[in-house]
Amino acid sequence: MRPINKLSTKSLIDSSKLTLDDINSIFCLAQYYKSNSHQKFDFHKNKVASLLFFEPSTRTKSSFELAAKKLGITTLSLDTSNSSIKKGESFIDTVETYIELETDCFIIRHQLSGACDFISKNTSSIFINAGDGKHDHPTQGLLDAFTLKEIFPDLSKVNITIIGDISQSRVARTNLNILSILGANISILAPSTLYPMHVDFKNINVYKSINEAVENSNVIMCLRLQNERMDSNALPSTSEFYKYYGLKESHLIQYPDLLFMHPGPTNYGVELDIKLKNHKNSLIRKQVNNGLYIRMAVLDLLLSNLS
Amino acid sequence: MRPINKLSTKSLIDSSKLTLDDINSIFCLAQYYKSNSHQKFDFHKNKVASLLFFEPSTRTKSSFELAAKKLGITTLSLDTSNSSIKKGESFIDTVETYIELETDCFIIRHQLSGACDFISKNTSSIFINAGDGKHDHPTQGLLDAFTLKEIFPDLSKVNITIIGDISQSRVARTNLNILSILGANISILAPSTLYPMHVDFKNINVYKSINEAVENSNVIMCLRLQNERMDSNALPSTSEFYKYYGLKESHLIQYPDLLFMHPGPTNYGVELDIKLKNHKNSLIRKQVNNGLYIRMAVLDLLLSNLS
Amino acid sequence: MRPINKLSTKSLIDSSKLTLDDINSIFCLAQYYKSNSHQKFDFHKNKVASLLFFEPSTRTKSSFELAAKKLGITTLSLDTSNSSIKKGESFIDTVETYIELETDCFIIRHQLSGACDFISKNTSSIFINAGDGKHDHPTQGLLDAFTLKEIFPDLSKVNITIIGDISQSRVARTNLNILSILGANISILAPSTLYPMHVDFKNINVYKSINEAVENSNVIMCLRLQNERMDSNALPSTSEFYKYYGLKESHLIQYPDLLFMHPGPTNYGVELDIKLKNHKNSLIRKQVNNGLYIRMAVLDLLLSNLS
Repeated sequence: MRPINKLSTKSLIDSSKLTLDDINSIFCLAQYYKSNSHQKFDFHKNKVASLLFFEPSTRTKSSFELAAKKLGITTLSLDTSNSSIKKGESFIDTVETYIELETDCFIIRHQLSGACDFISKNTSSIFINAGDGKHDHPTQGLLDAFTLKEIFPDLSKVNITIIGDISQSRVARTNLNILSILGANISILAPSTLYPMHVDFKNINVYKSINEAVENSNVIMCLRLQNERMDSNALPSTSEFYKYYGLKESHLIQYPDLLFMHPGPTNYGVELDIKLKNHKNSLIRKQVNNGLYIRMAVLDLLLSNLS
Repeated sequence: MRPINKLSTKSLIDSSKLTLDDINSIFCLAQYYKSNSHQKFDFHKNKVASLLFFEPSTRTKSSFELAAKKLGITTLSLDTSNSSIKKGESFIDTVETYIELETDCFIIRHQLSGACDFISKNTSSIFINAGDGKHDHPTQGLLDAFTLKEIFPDLSKVNITIIGDISQSRVARTNLNILSILGANISILAPSTLYPMHVDFKNINVYKSINEAVENSNVIMCLRLQNERMDSNALPSTSEFYKYYGLKESHLIQYPDLLFMHPGPTNYGVELDIKLKNHKNSLIRKQVNNGLYIRMAVLDLLLSNLS
Repeated sequence: MRPINKLSTKSLIDSSKLTLDDINSIFCLAQYYKSNSHQKFDFHKNKVASLLFFEPSTRTKSSFELAAKKLGITTLSLDTSNSSIKKGESFIDTVETYIELETDCFIIRHQLSGACDFISKNTSSIFINAGDGKHDHPTQGLLDAFTLKEIFPDLSKVNITIIGDISQSRVARTNLNILSILGANISILAPSTLYPMHVDFKNINVYKSINEAVENSNVIMCLRLQNERMDSNALPSTSEFYKYYGLKESHLIQYPDLLFMHPGPTNYGVELDIKLKNHKNSLIRKQVNNGLYIRMAVLDLLLSNLS
């Protein structure tokens, strides 16, 4: 029997609303699915999940799609390049169309912060935020924390440093939320133009250099540097960023136990030395794999709540 | 046991060929599927349906795709942006490829009137016209009539006015066909440049103004104003169209029982006042929902004919 | 019981590596699936196949997708127009993502020769090359040979002439490999600029004109003329190509038993007379149909090897 506990929330939109119990329930069920990998189930064969991705995605979309299919859920995918969006149909009208198509669960990525929250009002469908602008990406934070807890069961004994565009990254924001709930020791390192002015720094260390960061961390969490940061002149160049904030092979030689993560897709030579691709201390592929089980767990728990 | 009656037609291409018995059989089975919503069936699990959409679509394509999946049908979707059409492959060669891929049922949208009829000759596969140019869109007309009959069981007592681009809209043409068969009292209102010169007006009233239309109607059926009408200078501007042909909140205040429909996607501020979004008299979301059951019924009946 | 024999290869990347036994095993199982057409099976319902097509395709992609679904395999399709490739993610990182999403079998088309071979190193997943640059397209060669053997059980008694862009066509290269293994008598005809300098001509006749070719052949295999050959000035014009290398109705009148094939999509008026569309001697549609059963057989055999 798989472990199904009731979550405190109908939808998964904002990682800061998750309780420690919620997170533990998700991790417990994700562990079950990981132990039963390469198997299909039919727990939700009368359910429909609609994947509406208004921004490009490979790993998040494929991961959710496979998670749904492995649970027996019927999936519908919006093809933004060949849908009525081309005729000017609005986001809200698009979602309402899918509600009338018996969608039990929406999985939504949108470029606007708050889009998923906005659209989830006044409907009985479940919503999972798969990334909304600069705001949140709950399953990314959950899969990152799950990956860390596989290695460090007690996160209060671990020092994790997030490096990069802290101020505008939904991945950073989500990890700060979830790792805080789990009691990890979190630090950050960011160029001054990408520095998070809005964050409450009570429990967060701030490092001044990558050398200081790698010296004091068990895990480095790199963030994807988005091209629009370059366009807005927030940074002089990608090679400048790499020089001062990129994780290099020399760091791993100096600190052979240092682990590192990246939400992908990775810009090698910007956030990360190309020589670190497939390094034994990389958790990047584990993150992708665990993402599948986290998303199965989230879908299963939310849909089990529903029925 | 679901109610399966033999249709008079192998394929569903032209709404004017449907008999009253055909329409009643479809509505009867659609009602069955609506009463058993949120359920999957496996009546046609060895069947293959290919969705070939050469024009953008959200609701029609998703609706057919879900209808097929809920009946256990395996679906193939042509991705026009990444298929051999990019290499110049013709429509007929594309369809013949899918015939050889064991397609039992084609669901086709194409910009050319008659495309579906043309391609259906000399093959044993079933064809469902999901919109062909200015010609026809049978399931849209069926779902509209089904939605009306849920409210008005006897359509001969109902006055329905279709407003907009009557001359070039396949939705208008289809509704004129199906509502005539069902005995409804149909009127139209159209700008003179979008006036249907080809229609036999024996049984159709023609209104001169929106005020006259709303005063004498139980239901207003708006049509989507297509941008190409603007490009061809058939209309001075969208705001001009809205002023003289748009349905406004004031109309609903004056006639609080007036219902209204729209095939979607809706241009608010052109065909319809934005204040009427989610108005209690709107049938728009019911239309989308009923479309799912109409399409399940059509697929089920045509495929049951086949075997 | 379906006939499952062990193949000599874990993946299907290079047609020249296939043994005669491999080919016979594939044909035997394809025959089984053809005899049981319009049926679904669930032999591999816990397996996942990822279709990564970096070049446009209708028939190969749809054929593999349907083949997988008919075997109960869960499919994931990369949408190159809306994936992380848009954010600059590399081919190898994309494949690694899908490996972590429990992909048992990759089906890959890529514009670079050797892409599939390169990526298949150091992983336990199965890879099927669905076309890599100018190199190979094994299932195309297999379905062509299977189609020929249905008509001519003993290929050593058959004269087959391949016409067109021999030098750069992966279809030509694959057919030369597979038809050689099967002992067919192969000839070629090509414009001098598209002449294969690299091929070992020990067992291959070279014709000088289309008249000589049709006179001495049982089967003409046309190749698709790719537009990039025009752009590179390898040919004066498509009409010039048609004049000297196109198969025309007059040839079929002169040699009424001559059969012809084309891998599709066909450029009528370039490789082939439009009057030959749907000619009784055309094997084109049979090729597409047999492609489905060949791909079911290949998927089934490779995945059965795995477990």
